[in-house]
Amino acid sequence: MFQSFQIQAPQSALDVNLQHKIDTKTKPPGSLGSLEHIAFQLGRIQGKTTPDVSSAKMIVFAADHGVVDQGISLFPQEVTPQMVMNFLMGGAAVSVFCQQHNVPLRVVDVGVKVDLDDHPLLAKRKVAYASQDFSRTAAMTPEQVAKALQAGVEEVDQAIAEGCQLLMFGEMGIGNTCVSSCMMSALLGDDATLTTGRGTGLDEHGVSHKANIIQQALLRAEQDTGQLMVDWSPQTLAEQVGGFEILAMAGAMLQAAKCQTAFVVDGFICSVALLFAHKVAPLVKEYAIFAHQSNEQAHQRLLDYLNVEPILSLDLRLGEGSGAILSYPLIQSACVFMAQMASFESAGVSDQT
Amino acid sequence: MFQSFQIQAPQSALDVNLQHKIDTKTKPPGSLGSLEHIAFQLGRIQGKTTPDVSSAKMIVFAADHGVVDQGISLFPQEVTPQMVMNFLMGGAAVSVFCQQHNVPLRVVDVGVKVDLDDHPLLAKRKVAYASQDFSRTAAMTPEQVAKALQAGVEEVDQAIAEGCQLLMFGEMGIGNTCVSSCMMSALLGDDATLTTGRGTGLDEHGVSHKANIIQQALLRAEQDTGQLMVDWSPQTLAEQVGGFEILAMAGAMLQAAKCQTAFVVDGFICSVALLFAHKVAPLVKEYAIFAHQSNEQAHQRLLDYLNVEPILSLDLRLGEGSGAILSYPLIQSACVFMAQMASFESAGVSDQT
Repeated sequence: MFQSFQIQAPQSALDVNLQHKIDTKTKPPGSLGSLEHIAFQLGRIQGKTTPDVSSAKMIVFAADHGVVDQGISLFPQEVTPQMVMNFLMGGAAVSVFCQQHNVPLRVVDVGVKVDLDDHPLLAKRKVAYASQDFSRTAAMTPEQVAKALQAGVEEVDQAIAEGCQLLMFGEMGIGNTCVSSCMMSALLGDDATLTTGRGTGLDEHGVSHKANIIQQALLRAEQDTGQLMVDWSPQTLAEQVGGFEILAMAGAMLQAAKCQTAFVVDGFICSVALLFAHKVAPLVKEYAIFAHQSNEQAHQRLLDYLNVEPILSLDLRLGEGSGAILSYPLIQSACVFMAQMASFESAGVSDQT
Repeated sequence: MFQSFQIQAPQSALDVNLQHKIDTKTKPPGSLGSLEHIAFQLGRIQGKTTPDVSSAKMIVFAADHGVVDQGISLFPQEVTPQMVMNFLMGGAAVSVFCQQHNVPLRVVDVGVKVDLDDHPLLAKRKVAYASQDFSRTAAMTPEQVAKALQAGVEEVDQAIAEGCQLLMFGEMGIGNTCVSSCMMSALLGDDATLTTGRGTGLDEHGVSHKANIIQQALLRAEQDTGQLMVDWSPQTLAEQVGGFEILAMAGAMLQAAKCQTAFVVDGFICSVALLFAHKVAPLVKEYAIFAHQSNEQAHQRLLDYLNVEPILSLDLRLGEGSGAILSYPLIQSACVFMAQMASFESAGVSDQT
């Protein structure tokens, strides 16, 4: 499965043209800050000096997690399907922000614990009725890893076939901050205390309990695999401590990059999916636009490791893709200034003396 | 003039209702971060639990500055009218971002050095053909201070009469970063080296020269007035070291606050206008939403002094109101989540255990 993700670096043939176009717009050079970097990145990815992201799509992957049995979340597991319904009915944060920006929303069930009713916005790609409790046993089988990744791949293929120029990914799954912290520990070799945070609002005791469960899971998995976690392959890591929606997002990101399509990384959980994808194929990062710096403490550590700067820092900690969709108008602005701003020459404005 | 700005604090009668509504939306409490603070602030200002900023307006004030004769800007003074034309023709950053968000743009000439042709988007309220060079003499007469403030007041009155719910202000004027630094020094008693930055892109030598000119202007004005700058009234400060477009913005902000209408503060120059307005009537700050942290070094110092947190930090240093209009979709999102998100009860989602 992982070998299929052959990712090319974005094209550099237009680099000089892109920079020239950015620098001759009627503004002091560099004065549009991050928007200029985004415009440059999108121009490279799309191979155009007038990049376009007006056709975008939000895909939210949902799943449940066996480790919730260990009491690591404030919210009960039944909230996963309830929130999926809320997405579909248009009442969740990601729903209303997608409506605000005219971005179609699709929800993909890759492992919710109960069966969900049909709905036009819902894709049924259930890998299993929740993963296993990874503090006690492997989270999933090898086949389930492949199926979760494939769900993301197929969703992206479909979106690109529809003409989508920018993909946004979100997630829903009670307990998935815990799963993300565990995956991040395994990916970076970090102690669980460095990767564990408040999730939906745990107090100090709750965070400490969650870190203990993660530490226990990692020890269990090192024993079961006979390998130190830093030596795990992506396949082993996914089987031992993965989550279906996180792997689906990773598959989606890898496929988007393979198809040379830009995508937006939401907050902590989505960034862990990117980190996993990055272990599979480091060039995936070149296609990623980082939406926001989340309130979850480990997120800053992860962004520093990837050496990336997100667009927003609004103290969000909601997930769902909410930060990604909030960043979308700014990504659009990067394209708008490239397409519509006058140049010094065209506007007859004097350049620097 | 200044006595006319009687500003009431925003209403607190709905505080409990507002917080309850924010907290019962289908999300962990506080998880929408800054958007929740903006929603609360707008709800108080508008006296509604469903605040609305869908009718917004961008007003850009333009003027020239005599101090440009001292070589404190990289761009020649002729760029002020050229950029005004660029705003009107739709080719500037603020123009294209206003178009992106369907926000009407109005440009107000309060002191451009040359006469401008008529244009439907242009308001002609010229106070003078540029201010005087304040390194040598007072920037303006007492009557000019009043006229500049009044331009802002009348523009705001007109916008509110049209039904505008959110005002955004921008500025254009070659040399106005220098004027802003000088006003900030006088307002806070700061040495010019603390308030002077790169403007449109000065090098170290240019910044140092600009700080010297500002220091010279402040000394000149202290001698002429026989008062230390920290003892200056707003009137004296404005006469000695003001700029027409900055005073017009201050007048606009004070009038918006007086009319209990929220407004957006752009970057450094706009924040200095707010700082001036704040000296006149501190409650003006309650009506201000701070759009972005600019790249101009003194801006952080100013925001810290006001104890405010801006929405964006995109390393912008363009002015024009560009940061304000870029923050607008996020301010709208604060209203959208209040109006459209489901509550735990309405969506049938379980709350925390």
